[in-house]
Amino acid sequence: MRTKILLKEADLPTHWYNVAADMPNPPAPPLGPDGNPVGPDALSAIFPEALIEQEMSAERWIKIPDPVREAIDMWRPSPLFRAHRLEAALGTPARIYYKNEAVSPAGSHKPNTALAQAWYNQQEGVHRLATETGAGQWGSSLALAGQLFGIDVRVYMVKISYQQKPYRRSMMETWGAEVFASPTDMTEAGRGVLAEHPDSPGSLGIAISEAVEEAASRDDTNYALGSVLNHVLLHQTVIGLEVKKQLALVDDYPDEVHAPCGGGSNFGGVAFPFFADKAAGKDIRLVAVEPASCPTLTKGAYAYDFGDSVGLTPLMKMHTLGHEFVPPGIHAGGLRYHGDSPLVSQLHHEGLIDAVAIPQLETFEAGVLFSRTEGIIPAPESCHAIASAICSARQCVETGESKAILFNLSGHGHFDMAAYDRYFKGELHDYAFPEEELKASLGHLPRVG
Amino acid sequence: MRTKILLKEADLPTHWYNVAADMPNPPAPPLGPDGNPVGPDALSAIFPEALIEQEMSAERWIKIPDPVREAIDMWRPSPLFRAHRLEAALGTPARIYYKNEAVSPAGSHKPNTALAQAWYNQQEGVHRLATETGAGQWGSSLALAGQLFGIDVRVYMVKISYQQKPYRRSMMETWGAEVFASPTDMTEAGRGVLAEHPDSPGSLGIAISEAVEEAASRDDTNYALGSVLNHVLLHQTVIGLEVKKQLALVDDYPDEVHAPCGGGSNFGGVAFPFFADKAAGKDIRLVAVEPASCPTLTKGAYAYDFGDSVGLTPLMKMHTLGHEFVPPGIHAGGLRYHGDSPLVSQLHHEGLIDAVAIPQLETFEAGVLFSRTEGIIPAPESCHAIASAICSARQCVETGESKAILFNLSGHGHFDMAAYDRYFKGELHDYAFPEEELKASLGHLPRVG
Repeated sequence: MRTKILLKEADLPTHWYNVAADMPNPPAPPLGPDGNPVGPDALSAIFPEALIEQEMSAERWIKIPDPVREAIDMWRPSPLFRAHRLEAALGTPARIYYKNEAVSPAGSHKPNTALAQAWYNQQEGVHRLATETGAGQWGSSLALAGQLFGIDVRVYMVKISYQQKPYRRSMMETWGAEVFASPTDMTEAGRGVLAEHPDSPGSLGIAISEAVEEAASRDDTNYALGSVLNHVLLHQTVIGLEVKKQLALVDDYPDEVHAPCGGGSNFGGVAFPFFADKAAGKDIRLVAVEPASCPTLTKGAYAYDFGDSVGLTPLMKMHTLGHEFVPPGIHAGGLRYHGDSPLVSQLHHEGLIDAVAIPQLETFEAGVLFSRTEGIIPAPESCHAIASAICSARQCVETGESKAILFNLSGHGHFDMAAYDRYFKGELHDYAFPEEELKASLGHLPRVG
Repeated sequence: MRTKILLKEADLPTHWYNVAADMPNPPAPPLGPDGNPVGPDALSAIFPEALIEQEMSAERWIKIPDPVREAIDMWRPSPLFRAHRLEAALGTPARIYYKNEAVSPAGSHKPNTALAQAWYNQQEGVHRLATETGAGQWGSSLALAGQLFGIDVRVYMVKISYQQKPYRRSMMETWGAEVFASPTDMTEAGRGVLAEHPDSPGSLGIAISEAVEEAASRDDTNYALGSVLNHVLLHQTVIGLEVKKQLALVDDYPDEVHAPCGGGSNFGGVAFPFFADKAAGKDIRLVAVEPASCPTLTKGAYAYDFGDSVGLTPLMKMHTLGHEFVPPGIHAGGLRYHGDSPLVSQLHHEGLIDAVAIPQLETFEAGVLFSRTEGIIPAPESCHAIASAICSARQCVETGESKAILFNLSGHGHFDMAAYDRYFKGELHDYAFPEEELKASLGHLPRVG
C-alpha cells in the first residue's frame, strides 16, 4: 500500500490557477470610502503593479515567474500522504489523504505567497515591506522571503502573541526581520488604540492597520498581506494543483476536500483547483473549516466591511463578524480574523462550497490522534481540517462508504507546543460564542457609499 | 544550477553499512567489571538479541528489515542540497553540499535508529523501553517510534533541559511517552545523586544510569540508546549511503565530510559510508566537529571508561573526558557527552579521521549565516558542522581550490530558538575549557581488570 505520493521537481506547476475565471458571477469589487469600486491607482501606494493586476485578473492561468518557481522549489513539490495509520485507528473504509505543507522552511503554506510577493516587490524596486502577523506563521514566511530577495521586512506582531510565542519572533529575527509588539506607539493607528486601551493585547485587525499606515505613509515601503486578497489565494493554488497530479498517480480523486479557513488562503490554495472541476459538473464537496469561536462563514454577515480594525483598507464584500469583533483567545491564532477572503465568501454565499465550525477541544483531540498515528504534530489551525476530515471518515464507518477524503496539513505545531501542554493538562476549553458581541459588532458595519 | 538533489523511494538503501568490516583493526571489545570482554549474555537483560548481534557483527552489509524501511520511508530518502546561496555569500569557489536530516517528524536524524530499535524490540516481545535524553532530540524520536510500534516509552530527561526546553517534553508527551526530570527519586542511581546534590541539574551520564537501572531491574523493560553504540551508528549509515547516490546523480564526490560529533551517531551516519572508499584508497577527509567546551576527541584520553556517570554500563574503549566530567552548559545539548562512540574513537586514535573543536559563538554565527542564505534554521548541534564547513570554504577563497565540501544538517532549531535569542542579545559566550576539572576527571578513570 503506497503511503507517500511524490512528484518530480519538473511537476511543480508552471501556472497559478485563478478561480475568478470559473465563478458563475464575477467577484464583487472592493469599494473606496465613496462607495465606488477602487481602481488600480488606489492600491499602488502599497502594492506593486504586478500584484494589483493579479488582484483584478479574470485570466484562468497566470504564469509563475521562473525565479519564484526556483525559490519555492526549495521545498516543493510537497508530499501527499495516504493516512493508512489514521484510517486503521478510525476503522474507516474511507481513503484519507493529506497534503503536507509543513515541509517549508517556515513550517507552513505561507511561504508559497511570501516568496512570490517579495519577488514582485523586488522587481519593482521596492526594498522595504511592512506586514502584520498573528501567531507568526505569516510574519516568519515574509521574513524568510525578504531575506532571500534582499528586502527589509518590518512585522507588526499582535502583542499577546509577541508575548506568548517568543520563538516565532526569534525565527523572524533570525531571518533578519524587525518585529514590533502591536499596538505600537509608532503609528497613528497604534497610538489611537493605546490612548483608549493602554493594556490592549492587540488584534490582527489592529496590526493590519499599523502595517498599512506605515506602507501608505512612506514612499519606500509597500505592504504585504498573508491571506484574504485574491492574489494571495492565487499563489497558494500550487497546493491543489500538485495534489491533483499526485492523486492521478494513484488513480484517485477526492469526494471531499477539507481545509482550515481563517482569511481563506489555506482553503483557497487546496480547494480552488478542484472548484474548476466542480464548475465543470464534477460532484465534489469543498469544506472550509473554521473555529466555533470565530465562525465567520457560518455566523457572519455577507456584507461590505473593512479588512482592518481602524478602517484604513478598502471595503470588501465578504463574510464578516464586523471589523470591531475581537475573537476569543483560541490557540489557532491564524484563524482569529473577523473577515474572510472575498472569493471564498462569495462562493459560500452562492452555495458552491460548504463551511463547518468546530470547537477548540475537538480540534486538539483530532490533532493528537493524528500525531500518534501519522507521526506529524500539526499546527492548531491544521487541527481544524483534521477534525473535519475525521468527522467525515467516522460517518463512513456508519454508512460503509469508501469516500476519498483529502485535507490540507497546512503547518506543523513546533511553535505551538504550549497549546498541546495546556490541552493535556485540561486547561483548554471551548468558548461560548459571544452572540451579544457579534450583534453589537454587526451593528457597526460601515455604510456603503 | 541544480539546488535540490532528490532520490526516488526505491533508492532508499536496502542494507546498512557496517564500518567494522573495513577497519584496519577489529573494534576493541566492551569489558565487564572483571576486565574480560562482555559476551552477548551480559547485554541481553537490556537489549534484544538482534541488536546485540549487530553490536558485535563484522559483516559489511546488514539487511534493513522491510517494516523498518517502510517506516523510515515516511520521510526518507531525505534531500541533499547544493548550497549555492551560502557559497555566493562566502564568495568561495568551493562546492558546498548539505544533507537535510531535519525533515523527519522529530526534526533530526535520530528517528533513523529509533524506529529500527523499536521494531527489533517489538519483534522480541518487548513493549516497554526506558531511555535518557538531553536536549530531547533522541527522547522525542524514541517516543515517536514507540507510538508507531506499540511500545511504552519512559524518558529520563536531564533536569536542566526538562526545565529549559518544555516543548521538547510536550512533543514526547504528544507522542505518548512518559517523561521524568532526571535525577529522579525513582531509581537508586537518581536517589544517590540527589542525596549528595539535592539541586543537581542532571547530566546525560546520570540520566543514562537511571534508564539502564530501570531496564536492568525489570523483566518487561529494555533500554535504548540514541548514539555511541555500534548498532546505533550502523542504523544511521542510511544518511551517507543516500548521499553517495545523490552526489553520483550530479557526478560529484566530496573532498571533505563534516558532521557534528557528540556520541558519534551523526558523524558515523554520514561519514562511515565514505570511510569504505577511504579504506580502499580514496583521498577524502572525514571531520568530526565537537564543541570546544566538550572536546572529547581533541582533548580526551583514549581509554576504557563507563558510558554513564554512575558506572552501570560495561567499560568501552573510547575517547573520554572521564565519566565524572560535567561539560559546561552550551546550547548544543546533544554534544554534551563525556565519551564518544568506540568506533569513531578508534578511527580517530588510528589517525584515519580528523576532529576539530569549535567555540560556541562561532557555531551560532555560522548558523545565522546559513539560516539567512539557505533558509533553514539549524539546531545548535548542526551549527558545529556548518561552522567547520564554512571554515574550509573560506580557506578555498584563499587557495582558489574548488573543493567539494559536504556536511550533515542533522536537525532543525525549532526547539532551540531561545538559544538564538540569547545569541542576538549578546548573552551567549564561549566557555574557558575547565582544564583542571578535566585533569581531576581523568584521574578517576576506572581501572581495568
